[in-house]
Amino acid sequence: MSRIAIEEIEELCAKELPWAVQLGLQVEEIGDGSCRVRLPDRKENLRPGGTVSGPAMMALADFSLYVAVLSRIGRVELAVTSQLSINFLRKPQPGDLVAECRVIKGGRKLAYGEAFLYAEGRADGEPVAHVTGTYAIPEFAVS
Amino acid sequence: MSRIAIEEIEELCAKELPWAVQLGLQVEEIGDGSCRVRLPDRKENLRPGGTVSGPAMMALADFSLYVAVLSRIGRVELAVTSQLSINFLRKPQPGDLVAECRVIKGGRKLAYGEAFLYAEGRADGEPVAHVTGTYAIPEFAVS
Amino acid sequence: MSRIAIEEIEELCAKELPWAVQLGLQVEEIGDGSCRVRLPDRKENLRPGGTVSGPAMMALADFSLYVAVLSRIGRVELAVTSQLSINFLRKPQPGDLVAECRVIKGGRKLAYGEAFLYAEGRADGEPVAHVTGTYAIPEFAVS
Amino acid sequence: MSRIAIEEIEELCAKELPWAVQLGLQVEEIGDGSCRVRLPDRKENLRPGGTVSGPAMMALADFSLYVAVLSRIGRVELAVTSQLSINFLRKPQPGDLVAECRVIKGGRKLAYGEAFLYAEGRADGEPVAHVTGTYAIPEFAVS
Repeated sequence: MSRIAIEEIEELCAKELPWAVQLGLQVEEIGDGSCRVRLPDRKENLRPGGTVSGPAMMALADFSLYVAVLSRIGRVELAVTSQLSINFLRKPQPGDLVAECRVIKGGRKLAYGEAFLYAEGRADGEPVAHVTGTYAIPEFAVS
Repeated sequence: MSRIAIEEIEELCAKELPWAVQLGLQVEEIGDGSCRVRLPDRKENLRPGGTVSGPAMMALADFSLYVAVLSRIGRVELAVTSQLSINFLRKPQPGDLVAECRVIKGGRKLAYGEAFLYAEGRADGEPVAHVTGTYAIPEFAVS
Repeated sequence: MSRIAIEEIEELCAKELPWAVQLGLQVEEIGDGSCRVRLPDRKENLRPGGTVSGPAMMALADFSLYVAVLSRIGRVELAVTSQLSINFLRKPQPGDLVAECRVIKGGRKLAYGEAFLYAEGRADGEPVAHVTGTYAIPEFAVS
Repeated sequence: MSRIAIEEIEELCAKELPWAVQLGLQVEEIGDGSCRVRLPDRKENLRPGGTVSGPAMMALADFSLYVAVLSRIGRVELAVTSQLSINFLRKPQPGDLVAECRVIKGGRKLAYGEAFLYAEGRADGEPVAHVTGTYAIPEFAVS
């Protein structure tokens, strides 16, 4: 079970993460170290060629890793990304993007996870990007 | 010498990269496979703790790599990121962020480069993030 | 089904990959874009602290990705790693190491996959490392 | 100035790093957070196509980052790689390989650096690989 509710994430976004609100990121599911997050189809998130922009995909990935980490450790707002690596695999056709994310290691100081990004506009159901990331968890969170 | 002018980049942003315009990204210098790009200090780019958000830094990094690649190969709008990796090293204090970027390998099919991100709000002048990225160059660009 | 047999991999190692033979790497299973590879417990693969050395783990990961790619595209000996990223997650206690590897994208020019490395000496069954890698497939392989 | 001498590195290798001895790795220069390390040309380090194998290059990179970190923090043998990412850029022609390595951030808990690998067999002097890595520094080292 998640140690943070979707409503708390939404409250956190409203208060502290204006860019997540601006992109329209929606947490659809949350478990113990896992989540599914949606990036809605919006014109301002496109790039030349009509596909979803890299930065919008990176924001989705980073946010989904953050949510997956909080689902494991609770509301530690100051958990920060220390490393993120993204591989763009296939064209993200216009349409919503969905990140399926899970924590691979949830330590006291560092959490590491991966996310697969899917484009609903693709018929083949294959991931459009694969992301790994590390989050550093501040000292006062480990009590 | 760059194979694309700063004015052309600006025109490209206005036409095709709404997110770059929205963030206020400014190309300050451009060379042959190198550039300096500024992300202005804006409230909506912050995250909990009052530092610049990860996604804003990733967008800056991705854009600066794109510009550095175009400075080497000319206006190939459809060059796309295939891989990007970012390491967050130090707190990006509020204030403008500046990316110093250069191409390490500019091949016919792939270009690879790195960027150091600096926060003008930091007194020590040390980079706040280090980024590497690969761009895939579409076929019709190699003529 | 794999497009290359385990015996062919072994023949390839004997002829062309002395380092894989030296490490004692053994392909235990091979599928269509997936494989399991074992690194036997050997004194020369250890590092200070008595755990398996990073380079031995990287060699295991790189080899297993190579095998998984060949299982998808057939015996293309000149497929080469273009990028490899490894995250060390937990102490690899002495004992055999096993890589579980799969291709996430098998394109005509590039293949991308991930591997989880497990140490049989660990009681918790958690991965000791996570690896992602990209292989470039030479032109003459795409016919 | 380095906080560890080349002779100490050699002693450490003889005692604790059999794979570094086996590869013939030689530290040629060491500064404060920087070093140059040589991988000698040896038949067993080759791969199909007659170029230096990926694992040999990764071992060179990992070792050079370790040495650069120790040059900054002193003889902390238990510093361990937590993340390493390598991009292979050009063919490493047979001949010695040389890593030029430097620490970008040397913190109390984590050190981060990069290495450029050069092949002496290449006439153009361009790097054959670029590597970034993070080392975790054990608690007792920060006194």
